[in-house]
Amino acid sequence: MEKISSTKNTKVKEWVKLKTNNGRKKYRKFLLEGRHPVETALEQGADYEYLIIQEGFDLGELAERIDEERLILVTKEVANHIADTVHDQGIFMIGVIDEQVWQIPNDFSGKWLLLDNVQDPGNIGTMVRTADAAGFTGVVFGDGTADFYNPKILRSMQGSQYHLQLKRLNLKKWINSNKANGNAIFGSILDENALDYHQVEAPENFSLIMGNEGNGMSKELISLTDANLYIPIKGSAESLNVAVAAGVLIFGLID
Amino acid sequence: MEKISSTKNTKVKEWVKLKTNNGRKKYRKFLLEGRHPVETALEQGADYEYLIIQEGFDLGELAERIDEERLILVTKEVANHIADTVHDQGIFMIGVIDEQVWQIPNDFSGKWLLLDNVQDPGNIGTMVRTADAAGFTGVVFGDGTADFYNPKILRSMQGSQYHLQLKRLNLKKWINSNKANGNAIFGSILDENALDYHQVEAPENFSLIMGNEGNGMSKELISLTDANLYIPIKGSAESLNVAVAAGVLIFGLID
Repeated sequence: MEKISSTKNTKVKEWVKLKTNNGRKKYRKFLLEGRHPVETALEQGADYEYLIIQEGFDLGELAERIDEERLILVTKEVANHIADTVHDQGIFMIGVIDEQVWQIPNDFSGKWLLLDNVQDPGNIGTMVRTADAAGFTGVVFGDGTADFYNPKILRSMQGSQYHLQLKRLNLKKWINSNKANGNAIFGSILDENALDYHQVEAPENFSLIMGNEGNGMSKELISLTDANLYIPIKGSAESLNVAVAAGVLIFGLID
Repeated sequence: MEKISSTKNTKVKEWVKLKTNNGRKKYRKFLLEGRHPVETALEQGADYEYLIIQEGFDLGELAERIDEERLILVTKEVANHIADTVHDQGIFMIGVIDEQVWQIPNDFSGKWLLLDNVQDPGNIGTMVRTADAAGFTGVVFGDGTADFYNPKILRSMQGSQYHLQLKRLNLKKWINSNKANGNAIFGSILDENALDYHQVEAPENFSLIMGNEGNGMSKELISLTDANLYIPIKGSAESLNVAVAAGVLIFGLID
């Protein structure tokens, strides 16, 4: 088993870069952190390059499932250096990103959630989890939306990333390809003059777009949808949290 | 205008205690922080004891709305000491807690959201905002649920606390008083054998209970409801986030 004790080691330098979008794009890898997420990834047969543990970390039952040649031991100092959380849990995985993530699928059937410039990792993870619970086929991360290999999002998806397809694609392309296939595209906007979601009878195959927390969907995308849906606000709140709005629309449409 | 420059000042010591449940109960006051929350509180005519600003803070238009006698100037050191956030915004309000918060209302009519041992401030704030958007009458914080004067919850409610009634009461008492009034009580549980929420025709007056993030509602309360509702999970996720589940049920019931 390899042991690394310097934060200046070439591998360590690469791992730290995996915490950024650019680093993940360059190396086509991502960094996963914590016992439960790593265990789930292994259970789901995720492709990985290395499993990294801090000195003294007790692998427990994980030991049986791990390929010794890909196991790397690091000092506490190195672990702190690569960790995203303040209290790291002493175990990390260097995962391999599947190229399909960036590819338009051959088959658009099913229900898809599209995220247009959504920022908050907690909101994004919660929406992926909700789409999973509603039996959606996948979630498409559009331009400007935080990366799903962002460590905070990986944590908040709670394993739903293994249950549905996650894609990073330009949403305009997605919409145009879907329209060519005859699938419906629904936007969501905060506008009383838009279509009340209760009035929609959703077809078998559709995409639903959720927009940015503060500014909503981009104007360009709004103009490309088949219909833009609205959740009637009966009280005095100005808006709903985007993940709650997604939940109401998703479960409303699949009724 | 009074000026305080020591963190050992009696008032400062009291303000710091308002960051805890016990402190708020003892003094019947709470601490609000940040320009936007304080502005909103003033606009809504919230009762306050003091408005505290850090040296150099620009009151701007707020100056016209403030009672000079209740304005206190503090040093940066004192502001840091009483602040809940890392980057305080230089303005605080000492709000007065309305005694009604602890009193069972005379009138139970309308729709009420009941929180049983809910922990996460973000989830709680989001649920209050959702109940507000759905035109609910109020939210009842049961035993074990975080306090709504918790600074994090105050921030995440985004002003919805001024649009509906917030109560801190024992939920068993609430349920029994409501039953005596003939109002419906719905629980929410993660159990496929429970009642699918689609099958419920909600009456004009009802209470909906949401439970703890990890453990759900307490067994005692489950046994006291008229019906316990379930959101059918179609995919592979184990559960929905509690705030999303609340959104789906709330908007499903008021349909």
